[in-house]
Amino acid sequence: MEIEGRKRVVIENVKPEIDCGLFPIKRAVGEKVVVEADIFADGHDSVSARLLYKKGNDEVWSEVPMIFIENDRWRGEFRVQEIGDYYYTVEGWVDHFKTWQKDIKKKFEAGQDIGVDVLIGIGYIEGALKRAKGDDKKRLMHIISSLKNSSPEEVPLIAFSNELVELMDKYPDRSLSTRYEKKLRVVVDRERALFSAWYERFPRSCSSQPGRHGTFKDCEGILPEIARMGFDVLYLPPIHPIGKTNRKGKNNSPVAQPDDVGSPWAIGSEEGGHKSVHPQLGTIEDFVSLVNKAKEYNIEIALDLAFQCSPDHPYVREHPEWFRWRPDGTVQYAENPPKKYEDVLPLNFETENWRELWEELKSIVVFWIEKGVRIFRVDNPHTKPFRFWKWLIEEIKRDYPDVIFLSEAFTRPKVMYHLAKAGFTQSYTYFTWRNTKREFIEYLTELTQTEVREYFRPNFWPNTPDILPEHLQFGGRPAFMMRLVLAATLSSNYGIYGPVFELCVSEALPGKEEYLNSEKYEIRYWDWDQPGNLKDFIARVNRIRRENPALQTTWNLKFFEVDNEYILFYGKVNEDLSNIILVVVNLDPHHTQSGWVRVPVSELGIEPNQPYLVHDLLSEDKYIWQGEYNYVELNPHVIPARIFRVRKRLRKETDFDYFM
Amino acid sequence: MEIEGRKRVVIENVKPEIDCGLFPIKRAVGEKVVVEADIFADGHDSVSARLLYKKGNDEVWSEVPMIFIENDRWRGEFRVQEIGDYYYTVEGWVDHFKTWQKDIKKKFEAGQDIGVDVLIGIGYIEGALKRAKGDDKKRLMHIISSLKNSSPEEVPLIAFSNELVELMDKYPDRSLSTRYEKKLRVVVDRERALFSAWYERFPRSCSSQPGRHGTFKDCEGILPEIARMGFDVLYLPPIHPIGKTNRKGKNNSPVAQPDDVGSPWAIGSEEGGHKSVHPQLGTIEDFVSLVNKAKEYNIEIALDLAFQCSPDHPYVREHPEWFRWRPDGTVQYAENPPKKYEDVLPLNFETENWRELWEELKSIVVFWIEKGVRIFRVDNPHTKPFRFWKWLIEEIKRDYPDVIFLSEAFTRPKVMYHLAKAGFTQSYTYFTWRNTKREFIEYLTELTQTEVREYFRPNFWPNTPDILPEHLQFGGRPAFMMRLVLAATLSSNYGIYGPVFELCVSEALPGKEEYLNSEKYEIRYWDWDQPGNLKDFIARVNRIRRENPALQTTWNLKFFEVDNEYILFYGKVNEDLSNIILVVVNLDPHHTQSGWVRVPVSELGIEPNQPYLVHDLLSEDKYIWQGEYNYVELNPHVIPARIFRVRKRLRKETDFDYFM
Repeated sequence: MEIEGRKRVVIENVKPEIDCGLFPIKRAVGEKVVVEADIFADGHDSVSARLLYKKGNDEVWSEVPMIFIENDRWRGEFRVQEIGDYYYTVEGWVDHFKTWQKDIKKKFEAGQDIGVDVLIGIGYIEGALKRAKGDDKKRLMHIISSLKNSSPEEVPLIAFSNELVELMDKYPDRSLSTRYEKKLRVVVDRERALFSAWYERFPRSCSSQPGRHGTFKDCEGILPEIARMGFDVLYLPPIHPIGKTNRKGKNNSPVAQPDDVGSPWAIGSEEGGHKSVHPQLGTIEDFVSLVNKAKEYNIEIALDLAFQCSPDHPYVREHPEWFRWRPDGTVQYAENPPKKYEDVLPLNFETENWRELWEELKSIVVFWIEKGVRIFRVDNPHTKPFRFWKWLIEEIKRDYPDVIFLSEAFTRPKVMYHLAKAGFTQSYTYFTWRNTKREFIEYLTELTQTEVREYFRPNFWPNTPDILPEHLQFGGRPAFMMRLVLAATLSSNYGIYGPVFELCVSEALPGKEEYLNSEKYEIRYWDWDQPGNLKDFIARVNRIRRENPALQTTWNLKFFEVDNEYILFYGKVNEDLSNIILVVVNLDPHHTQSGWVRVPVSELGIEPNQPYLVHDLLSEDKYIWQGEYNYVELNPHVIPARIFRVRKRLRKETDFDYFM
Repeated sequence: MEIEGRKRVVIENVKPEIDCGLFPIKRAVGEKVVVEADIFADGHDSVSARLLYKKGNDEVWSEVPMIFIENDRWRGEFRVQEIGDYYYTVEGWVDHFKTWQKDIKKKFEAGQDIGVDVLIGIGYIEGALKRAKGDDKKRLMHIISSLKNSSPEEVPLIAFSNELVELMDKYPDRSLSTRYEKKLRVVVDRERALFSAWYERFPRSCSSQPGRHGTFKDCEGILPEIARMGFDVLYLPPIHPIGKTNRKGKNNSPVAQPDDVGSPWAIGSEEGGHKSVHPQLGTIEDFVSLVNKAKEYNIEIALDLAFQCSPDHPYVREHPEWFRWRPDGTVQYAENPPKKYEDVLPLNFETENWRELWEELKSIVVFWIEKGVRIFRVDNPHTKPFRFWKWLIEEIKRDYPDVIFLSEAFTRPKVMYHLAKAGFTQSYTYFTWRNTKREFIEYLTELTQTEVREYFRPNFWPNTPDILPEHLQFGGRPAFMMRLVLAATLSSNYGIYGPVFELCVSEALPGKEEYLNSEKYEIRYWDWDQPGNLKDFIARVNRIRRENPALQTTWNLKFFEVDNEYILFYGKVNEDLSNIILVVVNLDPHHTQSGWVRVPVSELGIEPNQPYLVHDLLSEDKYIWQGEYNYVELNPHVIPARIFRVRKRLRKETDFDYFM
């Protein structure tokens, strides 16, 4: 018998624990890790339990007590304070002293003789005495002598005295304690992993002069306005040389005209590959300058990692073994029959030289990290092996734990979730295609209230260069405003693809969700200040996000009732209820919708008979509400949403100034 | 990089899998194991998957294909045929041949040139050719030559031909397949673990002559009637010598009178301990004779394993280190303050000599196994360490895989479930205290439709020597009939404590669920043929169970609608729908209740416009029903339940004879 048969405590059903601990949970600096477990022993003995946690490879565990909730469920929590890995586990033991306390009280109350029990209790305290240090020894000895000299009436008082409880808690007998068999991992990211506003823009379309190819210098020129709008990540589609062979023409035409610029995702030409920049954008030095200039505006440049090659990519010549070759000697281009993507060659991850391929791809990431990039948006990660991503992200984060990877995968749910488990910091979502109240509630509940939230950090995009969703094609400006508010308040991470978003560009290829004259295949020039643009509105929404901590996390989302299927009503509060945000959104971009919302006043710490002020941070309108049911009306042609900050009344006076 | 980076398939969320595979699932011989898993790869390549299973330490896995269901979920199943351990796991791989099939079809339909693709396909077939054996080589070579000489129109026909599909399925390329990392265990028990009817009786109260201590010979005398009632397990409370020190008197009185017989659970006296029999019951040889006689009636004798001792037990003298000693030199009796059980000493499982204690307890089980016992009802297992049970049951089942352990634990849900995970074959349940329709539906749904069913086999007891539930105290004979039907049809394992059950004994200690003048503390004499006894009714219910396979498992339970809160309506069907049982029970023992049941005709394979016969196997009443809604009326003073066998019409004629 190799086991220790006297360990009587069972620890099971530990949460969070992803796939039996195979994958870590995710947190941002400052967030809590709340751990629950079923902890119990045989018999009626009392149990004590602690949550153990530590940073990285620390030798010593920190401990916090776990508290009994109900039905053998216990809970403890700790806060992560630094970037990198944390670990946690659980320990529990039969606590004979606590059992003794409980029993002696019952016996005393039943009028039973407790003479022998006092001696038994002294035995437990003497055990603690052996483990105690310094002054605590004296304190325990003093208690022992009090117990020896006490009358039966005094015994329960001493047994439950704060001093004894504290000392016994400090020196428990854990010789037969059960340690949960797994060390569970937390990957702690920096705050921007949790709270970020992304702006995507094609640099070649950023020229200040029509007719000229945009440059990194041009990108520097638009930084002030991007900052004014309130974004803190500027994501650039691939900036590398673009292949010429099988280059696509405008609107994805299979044949390019001589002046067509090609898709930036057809990476690589005789001018270089993934570690080069497109000469017309500028030089590597220009790029580094952009990165640094952006930092002055608190904006980070995010690059696109598209691990694929144009037929002209140097890799094709230098590493033919990284590609698939067909029996006729031609190279295999990307395809999803009957669709062909002849300007792009997929990498063959089944090559026998996969190790070299992996290392080279890693070196691309390191190359850009060394140029100052710490955020990567990964193109089509679902077409490369999951094992590769797990390895790559772990390798990178070991040396650069502040790097953020956003997974661009609009694929099957389990594939998307697995990419997040494999290590992606943030993930694209199905938000882009959710429209109805029921769809929002179901999907957001899945993202924020199930285990998914432990590893999958959503990043909501109303549009992308690949997707101009139908509601934006047909809903007009109100639809753009509505989708912006939804993305920015439902999720703490969101992004837009501009300037087509703020300019409310809605022309699509007929019957498709593709932009007409997409920037993917041509250079466009935009009048950014065109009338009706949403820049001020976006700036306001982003300022509201920055000023209200409740909007800086996603888990705190709760949906509330409203008697209109076109109105979505939800709220977010911060931990101490000092910041309460209620959002109502009209999902109908065409008609004014109104209804009675049901405010969960008791959850928000509002007395039923006390009025409270709701301050719409979008319109600056203020209303005094009372009780649960209150009226809202939303005209999409004015503003299709309200973002109320709730201000509770501090004094009896009704003057607004007395609302906090 | 130690990993194989080219393995692209992910296998996760494998079900059933209990606590990450820490505990096995349970099956009885002949039952199916249905395994599901999420299986997917990157990209758009097709995936193939197999369920692998094997018996015990077999070297070679058997395989069955897994079938794609939806949303990356796959399913496969196998049937266990022998007692002992089985293992299962899952394997999946990227199937380039299947991808090729799919793609070539799409390309052909899109009118694309498939010349090179045919060569690629031939490459895959040549791969299979290398793995193929015997005639299959010739068949594959023939197909290759057909493909080489085929016109484009013929290619898809050959690609999807049955012969090629079969051969490629027989010789797939699994060189980069992913095997799920765990081997998951199934403990396969004999059929009685799944389908059993228990009868509990105190042997000392079995005397045919009032005034005489019952004996094993007396027990032999009542076997024919127990068999006639249809029971197949006769469970005897402890049969060992009973201690005299602190012996309890009648009705658990703390002081025994000289003629008081004591509780059989106060095991051990100078006449012996757990390996001895109480002299007044007879000898070990008499017991063996009872075991053998019972077998003639297809009845197994189940013994009680109560691992505790009277103060007079030989262990106290021989192994004082197995008990707790108090500072005053006295031995610690069992207590749950303020309650004291001074006739019983608990074993101290925290003793340093726990190894010897465990071995001795194991030797008790082996002792009785060698006397022919294969079923044990374990008393209060929740007061001994879980690790001990896991060890004990595994040790025993390694040598005697046909042994059944029933866990008597009415404790917290997680404790009960953990005992089942630790190895108990069957378990007591909260059925005894479930009364309302909602309670039954909630509890039975938990037991039969959640993961619990994989390891927790319920055994439903309407009463026990410790529990005369309130509904039996006040509900009269109809309540006994109702509880019997519920226990016997909701659960395939059930038991009653007789003869008090079939005699409808309902007198309790005031305000308690304890029997008045309980047999636990005194010898009782019963007129087993007393008017109003339920023996014939029980015999009928047990015969219905034996004759209807649908009632011989518990998982197939489904609840159906009925518009009366006092009527419970549920059904069970066997796999091929040849046996359909519908049960209606009046939960009100006082009043006639009626209502409209909603029969799920389409689930049962009945056409909406076709009448069907429902044959009440309790009353022999027959009704012709049609469609979903049909009327029932249950007078508890006649029979408070109906157990309908549904007979579908075979021919158009309405004559009853034409119902199967």
